[in-house]
Amino acid sequence: MRDVAVIGVGCTNFGEWWDRSFRNLFVEAGVMAIEDANLAGEQIDAMYVGNMSAGRFIEQEHIGALIADYSGLATENIPSTRVEAACASGGLAFREAVIAVASGMANIAVAAGVEKMTDVDTSLSTDALAAAADREWEGFVGATFPGLYAMIATDYMHRYPLTREQLAQVAIKNHYNGARNPIAQFQKEITLDTVLNSTMVADPLRLFDCSPITDGAAAVVVAPLETAKKYTDTPIKVLATAQASDTIALHDRRDISTLDATVAAGNRAFKMAGLERKDIDFVEVHDCFTIAEICAIEDLGFCKKGEAGRLTAEGYTALDGNLPVNTSGGLKACGHPVGATGIKQVYEAVLQLRGDAGKRQVAGAEIGMTQNVGGTGATVAAHIFGRT
Amino acid sequence: MRDVAVIGVGCTNFGEWWDRSFRNLFVEAGVMAIEDANLAGEQIDAMYVGNMSAGRFIEQEHIGALIADYSGLATENIPSTRVEAACASGGLAFREAVIAVASGMANIAVAAGVEKMTDVDTSLSTDALAAAADREWEGFVGATFPGLYAMIATDYMHRYPLTREQLAQVAIKNHYNGARNPIAQFQKEITLDTVLNSTMVADPLRLFDCSPITDGAAAVVVAPLETAKKYTDTPIKVLATAQASDTIALHDRRDISTLDATVAAGNRAFKMAGLERKDIDFVEVHDCFTIAEICAIEDLGFCKKGEAGRLTAEGYTALDGNLPVNTSGGLKACGHPVGATGIKQVYEAVLQLRGDAGKRQVAGAEIGMTQNVGGTGATVAAHIFGRT
Repeated sequence: MRDVAVIGVGCTNFGEWWDRSFRNLFVEAGVMAIEDANLAGEQIDAMYVGNMSAGRFIEQEHIGALIADYSGLATENIPSTRVEAACASGGLAFREAVIAVASGMANIAVAAGVEKMTDVDTSLSTDALAAAADREWEGFVGATFPGLYAMIATDYMHRYPLTREQLAQVAIKNHYNGARNPIAQFQKEITLDTVLNSTMVADPLRLFDCSPITDGAAAVVVAPLETAKKYTDTPIKVLATAQASDTIALHDRRDISTLDATVAAGNRAFKMAGLERKDIDFVEVHDCFTIAEICAIEDLGFCKKGEAGRLTAEGYTALDGNLPVNTSGGLKACGHPVGATGIKQVYEAVLQLRGDAGKRQVAGAEIGMTQNVGGTGATVAAHIFGRT
Repeated sequence: MRDVAVIGVGCTNFGEWWDRSFRNLFVEAGVMAIEDANLAGEQIDAMYVGNMSAGRFIEQEHIGALIADYSGLATENIPSTRVEAACASGGLAFREAVIAVASGMANIAVAAGVEKMTDVDTSLSTDALAAAADREWEGFVGATFPGLYAMIATDYMHRYPLTREQLAQVAIKNHYNGARNPIAQFQKEITLDTVLNSTMVADPLRLFDCSPITDGAAAVVVAPLETAKKYTDTPIKVLATAQASDTIALHDRRDISTLDATVAAGNRAFKMAGLERKDIDFVEVHDCFTIAEICAIEDLGFCKKGEAGRLTAEGYTALDGNLPVNTSGGLKACGHPVGATGIKQVYEAVLQLRGDAGKRQVAGAEIGMTQNVGGTGATVAAHIFGRT
């Protein structure tokens, strides 16, 4: 396999965009990424797009072809493939693009992610998202995602020393970072009171423990490392790409507070990169709910089970801490257009490693990691990136 | 890239199965393929599954994880990825599995395809399928797939010498072949009268010009060619994997009677395999409607534009003709569970090349081809297979 590098990135601002369609959003992100890589469209060999549920949100499938067409690439007849793994769709689309270039099947590949969620009302979007869980054994009996993650939080807080206040610190930190990210849906700092006095969604999770419903798109361009310098002065090397599955239903897990797919994908990624946890300078994790960030930090092996709440409250994961987590603001403050999130994580990692992250720059960042979760952990993608 | 071979295949019988769920169907096909390859489940490194619209048909997304889980492989945490490209979902899932093994990222990969279409009524399934076309510019103004292919047929018959009787011969041939295929939904021969007197669906296409709504699943196992003999005495080599895109809307095409994505994917496949058209002993094409088979034969380069109708009527594409087309019975007689069709085509090609196709065996078949179409031709996958 050839080494692969990211040579261009683009991302729309995330939000509730009634004036821009699904098509507008991905074209905007795609053009940014292609221009950032100093490419012409016809130099692209392959496209992969992560999207969870355009079928339910905008009644459109066949998203790969749609994207190639509306990006003006239909006349080139380039292969364009949609990948779906619920909220991990973007992470998996990136991984397939990396594999295509590593194999030699493609030379320059675009990995994109897109979701347009606000064209339907909240009851339909909640139901569409519930299709990421086990419809027959979870959805049909009324389980929705806030409810499922509330069960994880309840189990976790019963077994480990995590306080309600520590959990709130995840949201406070991510909003602090999001306030320094121009693409974030919520660019506003919040306080402990904001979280603790917000509406209860599913006990113990309140409104400010939950990521929002969002429209957005992100795109990145990958190429063989050996030719990457032809396109950019700052190629970012893909040091590892890993993926793992688990049971789709939460109740079938060995342990509902540990995401075994995160453990497996993390271990595989570190093995592939030949690195240790201490080598990582920052990490973007999948904080669809505050409890998910707590689990992710532990399940990736950055601390022992039960310690992440205390470490978060102590500032260990803050922008100036030992291991900055979710410098972008995470899903919590950036917003969570589900198919786009995994690609937005790669976008953030690349900006950090280029030194282009502005007010949220991690000083001297050399190696970064991303973790993208589908459902309650039935699919996890983990990637590690390094400066070249 | 490593050479890749198919080492195991499985397929459910296709039909309207109210007693078997989506989950039952893919587990049945997957177990058949794994047993056929003499493997244990834990030897599998990766899974790719083609599915168009479980989100609309059974309100379930996150199909990769679901399949890994219900196949008993969740405890192995193997990567499992859903690929979607409308009716070409299966062909693209197969292609990603081949790329994963060719790259070295996986050693043994399963490519599966599944669709459960009969749990909803026909108006919903027709609307779900319309999501393969351009929803904003085709679906919202009332275009459905029979209507779109009827436009292709009308344009074609205006410009080329294709008679209504020649078109019917496609259906008659495919039902003849399907009557010799134990997995086909319709195992019954038909006559010219059956086709010409069947209900008009969208002029000039009648009921027997159209493939049906179907439940079914198919799975194949791929491995590096160099180790394939460890698992089977009859590995089938993947000589080429190719894919191409075109505009999603029919009205945006250069020529609506020529599928440029078929032309491009076909040319790429022949170039990759280093073969010529005359080297192909049989081909499985995407006959979602009779006119689609006529276009496919021509667009793959097996004859000139305008000749396929006459050649079909003369028996050129019959089981004992010069180029047997759709020996399985095609989508017309086998049925068309959309995500499964591309994998079923590979299943048929492998059976033919092993000499295991029973009453529909093409004598001395050495090299076969498959062509799988998404929408009206916005995505096409083309594969070439050979005996080893």
